[in-house]
Amino acid sequence: MAQVRTAVTHPLPPGSTIGIFGSGQLGRMLAMAAAELGLRTHIYSDASGPACDCAAAATILPYTDAEAIKAFAAAVDVITFEFENVPLDAVEIAGQHAPISPDLKALEIAQDRFVEKTFVANLAIPVAPFANIESEADLDAAGTQTGWPARLKTRRLGYDGKGQVQVSNSDELARTYADMGRPAAVLEGHINFSTEVSVLAVRDRNGHTAFYDLPENKHKDGILDTSRVPSQLPQDLIHQAHDIARRIADALDYIGLLAVELFVLPEGAAQCLLVNEIAPRVHNSGHWTSDACQVSQFENHIRAIAGWPLGATDRHSNAQMTNLIGTAANSWPTLATQSSTSVHLYGKREARPGRKMGHYTEISPISSAKTREK
Amino acid sequence: MAQVRTAVTHPLPPGSTIGIFGSGQLGRMLAMAAAELGLRTHIYSDASGPACDCAAAATILPYTDAEAIKAFAAAVDVITFEFENVPLDAVEIAGQHAPISPDLKALEIAQDRFVEKTFVANLAIPVAPFANIESEADLDAAGTQTGWPARLKTRRLGYDGKGQVQVSNSDELARTYADMGRPAAVLEGHINFSTEVSVLAVRDRNGHTAFYDLPENKHKDGILDTSRVPSQLPQDLIHQAHDIARRIADALDYIGLLAVELFVLPEGAAQCLLVNEIAPRVHNSGHWTSDACQVSQFENHIRAIAGWPLGATDRHSNAQMTNLIGTAANSWPTLATQSSTSVHLYGKREARPGRKMGHYTEISPISSAKTREK
Repeated sequence: MAQVRTAVTHPLPPGSTIGIFGSGQLGRMLAMAAAELGLRTHIYSDASGPACDCAAAATILPYTDAEAIKAFAAAVDVITFEFENVPLDAVEIAGQHAPISPDLKALEIAQDRFVEKTFVANLAIPVAPFANIESEADLDAAGTQTGWPARLKTRRLGYDGKGQVQVSNSDELARTYADMGRPAAVLEGHINFSTEVSVLAVRDRNGHTAFYDLPENKHKDGILDTSRVPSQLPQDLIHQAHDIARRIADALDYIGLLAVELFVLPEGAAQCLLVNEIAPRVHNSGHWTSDACQVSQFENHIRAIAGWPLGATDRHSNAQMTNLIGTAANSWPTLATQSSTSVHLYGKREARPGRKMGHYTEISPISSAKTREK
Repeated sequence: MAQVRTAVTHPLPPGSTIGIFGSGQLGRMLAMAAAELGLRTHIYSDASGPACDCAAAATILPYTDAEAIKAFAAAVDVITFEFENVPLDAVEIAGQHAPISPDLKALEIAQDRFVEKTFVANLAIPVAPFANIESEADLDAAGTQTGWPARLKTRRLGYDGKGQVQVSNSDELARTYADMGRPAAVLEGHINFSTEVSVLAVRDRNGHTAFYDLPENKHKDGILDTSRVPSQLPQDLIHQAHDIARRIADALDYIGLLAVELFVLPEGAAQCLLVNEIAPRVHNSGHWTSDACQVSQFENHIRAIAGWPLGATDRHSNAQMTNLIGTAANSWPTLATQSSTSVHLYGKREARPGRKMGHYTEISPISSAKTREK
């Protein structure tokens, strides 16, 4: 395989072009952040999506079209991605013509739950008990290893609660595994966590890492519902969370925004933070940064991959972000009347159930007073 | 002339398309604001510019191409403009196929300094002494009316200090008028102002008007250099400024963001505020709203013309915006290292002298301010 470059060699001047694999809402927000810095964007995706309306150029062709991928890569100055399931072959081909940030290795790891958990565990970072399942022969040992209840998850292509089912005993596990079609899977032990937080870390090409304040996340039906800053996490756990994210980012020689989802175990437990999942990209739990920080996660991702200095990650306000899933986005006329609320809609044509259509952010002053003096 | 519609009849749902005449940086920022609300944008301009990189569609053809204008208007749900010198014929044709907000009347007035000053004066709002000059025969009377020194300005197509010259006496006036090629012009009396501020007012289709805090503006070589909030303006003058802008907006049945530039006369003068200029569009002195408000001037302009409720105009921070003119934009690598500074670059290819290439905004917490505007 030819050499894949992983970083630009100098800060890209305004007028340069950022290539983005994927055309979803994260690509859209990356495109807008790039535009604020005078950078153009070029989307490559196998389907037209919300990012195309905000980008200077878009190539909509299969990820298997090697010639088109080459032409795309030759037309841009650095390439990134807005989802972790970009086919690796496409990224490898592109990487022969333009630097790829973050590195291919981050994608490889994040595309496979077993590889990901093994990678994190090998860094001596706590994860929930997990077991690999390659065939029915592995089921019994897996159940013994994780205990009950547990979650059966496909190793690949799961997101927003898709490709995973909770199981209570070995019979249910066997039935569910058969129903799923016997895929490569992992079984994860149940974690009785008190809250979920995520680390939004951004690392530049010189290895400098900065952190946004940790949002506390709540899920509904397996999909992120709200993210709130500040979290209630005590300072020592915040430092522990940063340390976990830094070790993961350093191990990947990561460039860009990295999200690490963490379970916070109830007080009194021996081990207080467990890694749930890593996402080698900008993350839904960081959308509040667009409204409550001078430099958003999107801009800092672009700064990092473009070789720019990182921007400040400070908050000027407290914030709560709420996702608009499916028809919830139909409430936009009401949301638009609420002061202290920013409405963000992704321009998706069809509000299918479970589809992320937009989000809104409520902000409030950091000062402890509930009401603002005017 | 066929009927020109001036407002949408209902709030435009996400997925609707905003048409924008003009492809400059203001159009670019409007396109991004529209995208945040799930609205598409379609640019019409006689030259490709920075807005095209961020819009879903662009038509680059002369403003005299009636068929192209019709097709553009038929493809969008409402039309606005990012500069006041859009040829009126183009807007009239477009207005037969889609609503135009703000109204054509605002454009007609803003395109001609004499018409504009007469319009404002007729509302019993103070302006600097001015005189119309249609030929050399008008020069003497004009000089008598304004006194010396005075500024000779073309009635049409002047901006950023272009098309205007300071003159000290009638000989200089005669020479300068001949040098300019004897255009339709106005002579304006010199105003010994202490500061300049601008009102950023946004008015919805129901006549409700909201105001951003007034920025205090400093110019350099006839071009805006910095805008700072809060200004030092006392409360009674703030109310007076709001009143002036509201009367202008009401008289135009205005929809969208209206900027009114005001001279503040030194303390002790009988009349404290004078209108310098009005701009029927988003305004350079309001760029800080993108960084210091939850809803920027750009989003509120889009909300108003799309028939949405207006968003909050509150500031969460104090701010100072500085323009990057010409090669000043080459300082981006340094600016990018400064925390509390947002860098905005417009993606223009060539840094010509006097050309607005970008701006940056420094924000600081409101609590540290010596004075509060509200």
